[in-house]
Amino acid sequence: MVQAVIVAAGSGTRMGPGVDKLFLPVAGRPLVAHTWQRFDRAGCIDVLVLVVREGMEPAFAELAKEYGFTKPYRLVAGGTQRQDSVWNGLLALEPECDVVAIQDGARACTPQEVIAATVQAARDFGAAVAAQRLTDTVKLSSDGAWIDGHLERSHLWAVQTPQTFRVEVIRQALAAVRARGLQVTDDTAACELTGQRVRLVESTASNPKVTTPADLSEVERLLQAMDRGD
Amino acid sequence: MVQAVIVAAGSGTRMGPGVDKLFLPVAGRPLVAHTWQRFDRAGCIDVLVLVVREGMEPAFAELAKEYGFTKPYRLVAGGTQRQDSVWNGLLALEPECDVVAIQDGARACTPQEVIAATVQAARDFGAAVAAQRLTDTVKLSSDGAWIDGHLERSHLWAVQTPQTFRVEVIRQALAAVRARGLQVTDDTAACELTGQRVRLVESTASNPKVTTPADLSEVERLLQAMDRGD
Repeated sequence: MVQAVIVAAGSGTRMGPGVDKLFLPVAGRPLVAHTWQRFDRAGCIDVLVLVVREGMEPAFAELAKEYGFTKPYRLVAGGTQRQDSVWNGLLALEPECDVVAIQDGARACTPQEVIAATVQAARDFGAAVAAQRLTDTVKLSSDGAWIDGHLERSHLWAVQTPQTFRVEVIRQALAAVRARGLQVTDDTAACELTGQRVRLVESTASNPKVTTPADLSEVERLLQAMDRGD
Repeated sequence: MVQAVIVAAGSGTRMGPGVDKLFLPVAGRPLVAHTWQRFDRAGCIDVLVLVVREGMEPAFAELAKEYGFTKPYRLVAGGTQRQDSVWNGLLALEPECDVVAIQDGARACTPQEVIAATVQAARDFGAAVAAQRLTDTVKLSSDGAWIDGHLERSHLWAVQTPQTFRVEVIRQALAAVRARGLQVTDDTAACELTGQRVRLVESTASNPKVTTPADLSEVERLLQAMDRGD
């Protein structure tokens, strides 16, 4: 069994005070409902877990009804940090789940074939992540004032989600993070602690995460194009 | 005297065969006319040099007339590589020019205050570049298949243009590149050869370069917003 954990518990302070970016309307529905739909429709996913802010459970249950999502789902409360929310999501997996795809709730445009490709790569290699080559010319600066060095662009990848794992691989990696009191910004970073190698799966299309207000119109454009092609 | 060199000689193969991206219509005029306008209106710039593909001089002269650009400009033919085009642009500077701002022709949204800030920083420090902090989580992969390592995001900057220099600084740096038969992808990289440190100037707003067709609609949106605020 393959499950998705959609992490939808962030406060998203960069959108302005009091704004829950996951419920901002984009292309005709709340942002997170698009994300949910991607996984509801993905043939490779059997059951969903949505990790939400405490008290938001009814709003999410309402979304499922309103948009007619058909796959079984479970709602669980998030933690303080992203890694705590992911941990809570992992605790809610079915016992027979062997592969889990962890997705940012605000990443609404992930193509079906990218989800499927990370699931396959996780089966084959233990850990996999959707990623895209950087198009920027990137420099290192330790102080934000002077350039310290140049990075070879062909070696740079922006990692996205899904970050997909054999369940025991990510449980072990996040347990190691927690045991050492560390914080990781993404789940593949946890794998470094256990020596688990992570396979890159190149995204076939734009797969942005909404972080600032400026991202919304770009995501709206992408979603409208996807809906036309869906 | 401060001059701008607008590099508008590329073939831009990523837009498709036979398409000159600089003349694609965006927000009511050819893309490169927006770039030109930024520098025509910038209070800190005295004279422009446009480096264009051989034979394109009449098309550029037509733009100046059609859009009523008021600053003196000179058109010069580009070279095979970007660095050759920049070199040709430097050869066309007025003798009294002491600071030069080098700009990608396809980077049409650069804010006036970013141009002015790079000019000031180049006066103060010799070399400066518009840049933005990366928002992506970035991993290193030497083979494009496996993650080799994580990069600390707070140390990563995407460099843009203008890349602005005291004239003798960039002449010396590019002469060193040419003498050694090297190729550099950006002008600040040339400064590494001569030990010239490069100052980062944080862009206050989006400053993208049009590379692929997908970039066009984003740039159109930005330009429309800028025109409303201009």
